[in-house]
Amino acid sequence: MQIIEVERKILAKNDEIAQENRRFFEKEGVYVYNLLSSPGAGKTSILERILERLKDKVNIGVMVGDVQTANDAERLDKYNIQVVQIITNGGCHLNSMMIKNGIGKVNFNNIDILFIENVGNLVCPSNFDLGENCRIVITSTTEGDDKPLKYAPIFYSANVLIINKIDLLPYLPANMNEIKNNSLKINPKLKIFEVSALNGNGIDGLCNWIIGNIKR
Amino acid sequence: MQIIEVERKILAKNDEIAQENRRFFEKEGVYVYNLLSSPGAGKTSILERILERLKDKVNIGVMVGDVQTANDAERLDKYNIQVVQIITNGGCHLNSMMIKNGIGKVNFNNIDILFIENVGNLVCPSNFDLGENCRIVITSTTEGDDKPLKYAPIFYSANVLIINKIDLLPYLPANMNEIKNNSLKINPKLKIFEVSALNGNGIDGLCNWIIGNIKR
Repeated sequence: MQIIEVERKILAKNDEIAQENRRFFEKEGVYVYNLLSSPGAGKTSILERILERLKDKVNIGVMVGDVQTANDAERLDKYNIQVVQIITNGGCHLNSMMIKNGIGKVNFNNIDILFIENVGNLVCPSNFDLGENCRIVITSTTEGDDKPLKYAPIFYSANVLIINKIDLLPYLPANMNEIKNNSLKINPKLKIFEVSALNGNGIDGLCNWIIGNIKR
Repeated sequence: MQIIEVERKILAKNDEIAQENRRFFEKEGVYVYNLLSSPGAGKTSILERILERLKDKVNIGVMVGDVQTANDAERLDKYNIQVVQIITNGGCHLNSMMIKNGIGKVNFNNIDILFIENVGNLVCPSNFDLGENCRIVITSTTEGDDKPLKYAPIFYSANVLIINKIDLLPYLPANMNEIKNNSLKINPKLKIFEVSALNGNGIDGLCNWIIGNIKR
């Protein structure tokens, strides 16, 4: 019981700081996306395709969480945007306090959109509100059609689903309709985008939707 | 500090029960594999290929952990072996107590090998000894070459690495040498197998090695 009590306190404290973050982002007029997926589903690659298309049109910042290494931040640095790497040192998810600490490292005067790239994990990040406006879960065609059913909480908590690696469909025993139906079974409100971060298919539509959410 | 203290107690308790499990498996002459990977890297598919080849030669049991659904146990049930599904109800990893509870559901009189399929998660399961003899981490060619560096603890804690989905290599910007070198940088002792659960390449070699570990 002691463990459950500690967990409850951690989540309550996390929610409180997430609300502070949300108020801060609101005041600054920043729209915040929290990107969640398995390791290797393509969070960073999709961000790269988005940055290529949008970095000269809108002002974008990124906070990127990893268990170890600053590889992802280095990949994103070449787009000349503000990137903050958060290393969790073994931690399996980002929490709202890490984002609050990251806020101090970004100049929000000229930021319209902040992407938060979470740690690659389809389980633990689902419980941790970071203060985002929109939660995007990314799955890839290579992961198996039943992932939404098996990792339901994260699909249930998301607003948007991106299905990545559609370029690999001809070589896989995957069924796009199954992936979509299973996702909608868990969360009928999910908005779905189908993309390939490798060849860019579907990324323009995703970018148009992203721009449409800007507050100012 | 309270949280760290609780974590320390949880891990100490887990290690204690894992040792009990290990003594039990030793007494029963069962060799135990703990399979870890991201969601969708192919744990269940690889198990299916192994069962097709070995189920009539040796006696195999499986305990399979999932956040939700009994899909994996149902997939494995058709091989006429003993399968126990452990549903964690949101929990992000298996622990030694879950395995201890599962032990009561298996008749070990005629089991030579027990496979434990962990929850799909490249972070949290690394800290939790289950009482296994051998820890196998599975990565797939689609996940990106740098995963061993970014999710180092799990690669560091493993004895064996299986690189799955080698059939997709012609369609990916993946570099097999990079995956292997990055893995060996984290853990130079890793024994590495390259396989395709889809077309069966490399599975025979894996099965020969698995049989070689049997105790009786």
